[in-house]
Amino acid sequence: MIDLKRESLELHKRHRGKLEVVPKVPLGNSQDLSLAYSPGVAVPCLHIADDGTKAYDYTVKGNLVAIATNGTAVLGLGDIGPLASLPVMEGKAALFKSFGGVDAVPICLDSKSTDDIVFALTLLSPTFGGINLEDIAAPQCFEIEERLKRSCDIPVFHDDQHGTAIVTAAGLINALRIVGKTLDRVRIVVNGAGAAGIATVDLLHAMGAADIVLCDTNGIVYEGRPNGMNPVKARVATITNPRGLRGALRDAVREADVFIGVSAAGALHPDMLRSMAPGAIVFALANPDPEIMPEEAKRAGAVVVATGRSDYPNQINNVLAFPGVFRGALDVRAAEINEAMKMAAVYAIAGLIAEPELRADYVVPAPFDPRVAESVAVAVASAALETGCARAALPEEEIVRRIRR
Amino acid sequence: MIDLKRESLELHKRHRGKLEVVPKVPLGNSQDLSLAYSPGVAVPCLHIADDGTKAYDYTVKGNLVAIATNGTAVLGLGDIGPLASLPVMEGKAALFKSFGGVDAVPICLDSKSTDDIVFALTLLSPTFGGINLEDIAAPQCFEIEERLKRSCDIPVFHDDQHGTAIVTAAGLINALRIVGKTLDRVRIVVNGAGAAGIATVDLLHAMGAADIVLCDTNGIVYEGRPNGMNPVKARVATITNPRGLRGALRDAVREADVFIGVSAAGALHPDMLRSMAPGAIVFALANPDPEIMPEEAKRAGAVVVATGRSDYPNQINNVLAFPGVFRGALDVRAAEINEAMKMAAVYAIAGLIAEPELRADYVVPAPFDPRVAESVAVAVASAALETGCARAALPEEEIVRRIRR
Repeated sequence: MIDLKRESLELHKRHRGKLEVVPKVPLGNSQDLSLAYSPGVAVPCLHIADDGTKAYDYTVKGNLVAIATNGTAVLGLGDIGPLASLPVMEGKAALFKSFGGVDAVPICLDSKSTDDIVFALTLLSPTFGGINLEDIAAPQCFEIEERLKRSCDIPVFHDDQHGTAIVTAAGLINALRIVGKTLDRVRIVVNGAGAAGIATVDLLHAMGAADIVLCDTNGIVYEGRPNGMNPVKARVATITNPRGLRGALRDAVREADVFIGVSAAGALHPDMLRSMAPGAIVFALANPDPEIMPEEAKRAGAVVVATGRSDYPNQINNVLAFPGVFRGALDVRAAEINEAMKMAAVYAIAGLIAEPELRADYVVPAPFDPRVAESVAVAVASAALETGCARAALPEEEIVRRIRR
Repeated sequence: MIDLKRESLELHKRHRGKLEVVPKVPLGNSQDLSLAYSPGVAVPCLHIADDGTKAYDYTVKGNLVAIATNGTAVLGLGDIGPLASLPVMEGKAALFKSFGGVDAVPICLDSKSTDDIVFALTLLSPTFGGINLEDIAAPQCFEIEERLKRSCDIPVFHDDQHGTAIVTAAGLINALRIVGKTLDRVRIVVNGAGAAGIATVDLLHAMGAADIVLCDTNGIVYEGRPNGMNPVKARVATITNPRGLRGALRDAVREADVFIGVSAAGALHPDMLRSMAPGAIVFALANPDPEIMPEEAKRAGAVVVATGRSDYPNQINNVLAFPGVFRGALDVRAAEINEAMKMAAVYAIAGLIAEPELRADYVVPAPFDPRVAESVAVAVASAALETGCARAALPEEEIVRRIRR
C-alpha cells in the first residue's frame, strides 16, 4: 500500500494530470488553418445556426461528456470539495476514452446548492452530448439528476447510482443462475440508502424483484418510519419491504437469499450471514474494505461472493457499464438513459458469461474483457431505438468502430 | 470560396469535430487502473484537499483553459448562439494545443445574462487554470471579464479584446520604426468601439500613446457625447481625444498618422486616407473584407498596410498572442494577465523582426513562425514574476519544453 501511494503520486506528478486535449485535424499550414478555423469554420457554424442537430455532424458535441461533480462524496473520502476531486474526474474521463471511445472532460463545480449546480450545468449543456454526474452526495444527487433530466435535452446519468446498479444487477442475475433461484422469488436485502443503494433497489424492482428490504444506519426502511427518512427513502419504502419488516439489518438478513452491501466495512457479521437462507449470495461492495471479507463470507456459508475490489474474484466495477452505456446512448443521440436502456446493459453484461463458463467466482466479466463495452453499447442503442428516445440510427458496426478508435 | 466551403464542411464532418480528449497515462491493465483510478487516485486527492496548490502538480488544472462563450458575437456572423459557436471554440482549442501546448475545452453557455455567465464560470473555475473568453458581444464582454477577474483566482482573458490589441500594438511598433515616428508623438485613430477597439485604445494608451481618437458608428467618441455611449466608451473618452475633436471619422482621420480599423468593410474611403499625414499607417482589420483593400490603401498613400487576412502581408492574427500569453501565464501560475504581461507580449512579438528584415510588408511575424509562442511565453512569464502576480517560478527551458510537447 505504501508503494501504491508513492507510485500514484509519482504518476500524477510526472504527467501533471492524466488528460490532454488534442486536435484531430491537421493544423500545419495556413491552408489547414483556413479550413479548421477562420474563415472556413464559418460554414459549419452557419449550418448549425440553421439546424441545431447538425452540431452532431460537425462538432465534438455528440461524443463529448461532462463529468460533473461538486466533490461532496468522492470515493470513500467524503466531502473533499471540487478541486480535490479533480484527479478522480480526470481518471474517469481517461476510462471513458480508453474503454468507450468517449471524449470526456471534468467539470468540478464549487457549490453545494442544488439550484446552483442544476443551473450551471443546464447553461453549459449545449457544449456536450451527455452529462455524467459523479461523486455528489445523497440525497442531493437524486434531485440534481431528476431536475437536470428535465432541463437538459441530453442524457444525464449519475454513475454512482446507475453504473453500480447495472453491474450489481448483472452479477446478481448470474449468481442466481448458480444457486438455481430467480429474481422474482428471492428475498433481497440492500444495505445502504445512498446513491448506489437506492438505484440498485429501483433497478432490481424494475427488473422484477418482488421482495427487497432496504436498510440504512437506522435499520430497515419502512413507510412512516419516524427517523432518518428523506423523500427518496419515503418513495422507495412504498416499493420495498412487502412483508412489513421492522428492526435492524440483522432482522432483515434472516432467511434472506441475497445481501447487497453498499454501506461500510464490516457491516455484515458472519453470524448474520449464517442466518441467511441456504445458497446465500453476498455482494459486499464497500470500498476498499467490504462489509465482510470474502474468505469469511465463504466460511459462513455464502455460495457466491462479489466485492468492489480488483484483488478478489467477481469485481463489481462500474467500468463494465458506463463506457458502453454512454457509447450506445451517444451513438443514437438518445434523449435520456431510461430504465429499458439500463436493463439492456444489465443483460448484455450478464450474457457475456455463457453457461459452461459460469462459476461462483466468475459471475461478472473482467474489467478488461474487450467484449463488454461493445455488447453494452449495442444493447443500449437498441433499447433506445425500441423505446423511442433515440434521435438517430447508426449501424451496429459503426457503434463498434467508435469504441475501438 | 466554393471549395473552401465544401472542404471545411467535409473536414468537420469527417472527424465529427476537431478535438479529442485522450489519456496521457497508461490504462492497459488493472495495475495501471489502480494507480490512475481507484484506489491509488485517493492519494493525490487527499494531498490536494490538504493544500489546494497541489492541484497544479497532480492534475491537468494548471494546463487547462476554458474557452467560454455565449455565441453572441461569433466571427463576423453575429449572434448565432452557443451551439452554433462550437466549431469556432473547438478550432480555438485546437490552436491553443497546437501553438502553445495548452489543453483547452469549449464551454458554450446558453445565456445572454451577464450575471448567469459570471456565476456559471465562477462555479466551474476550480477545474481550470485559466479562462479565455471568446466571441461575447460588447459591451457585455467588458463587464463579464471585469467581474470574472474579481470572482476567480485564475487568469481571465478576453481574446477578442486583448489578443487583437497585443498583435495590433506589436505591428504598430514595427510600422512606426519604418516611418520613423514614435508612439508618444503620433496621432492615432481607432475606428470601432467594440471589444477589439476598446482594448486596443487601452493598451496603446498604457504603452504611451498620447493622442488617440476613438470613433464608432456615431463618429468621434468624446466626453459627454449625447448619443450611442455606454459606460466603457465614457471611460475611454476620458483618456482619448486630447484635442477635443468632434465630428465624423472623416474629421478624426485628417492629419492622423495611424488608422486602426476594427469596424466594417469599406469604412476608410481612399480620399479619407489621402487626408492623413505623410507616412500613413493603415491597419484595416475588418474580416473578411477590410476597411480598405491593401492595393487601394497603397495607391492612396499608405506606407504600411496590415489586415486580418492570410492572403495579404502583415496579417494581424491573434494566434501570435494567445497561445504564448496563456503558456507564460499558466507556467508561473499567474493570478491574472495584467497590463505589464500584455505589453511584454507586444514587445516580444515586435522584437522578433530585427532591423535588417523589417519592411513595410513585414511588420509582424508569420503565424507559423515557431519562435513566436516561445518568445511571448517567456516574456509574459517574466513580466508576471516582475509584477508579483506569479505564484510559481519555472525555468525558461521548462516553459519552452511545454510549448514543444
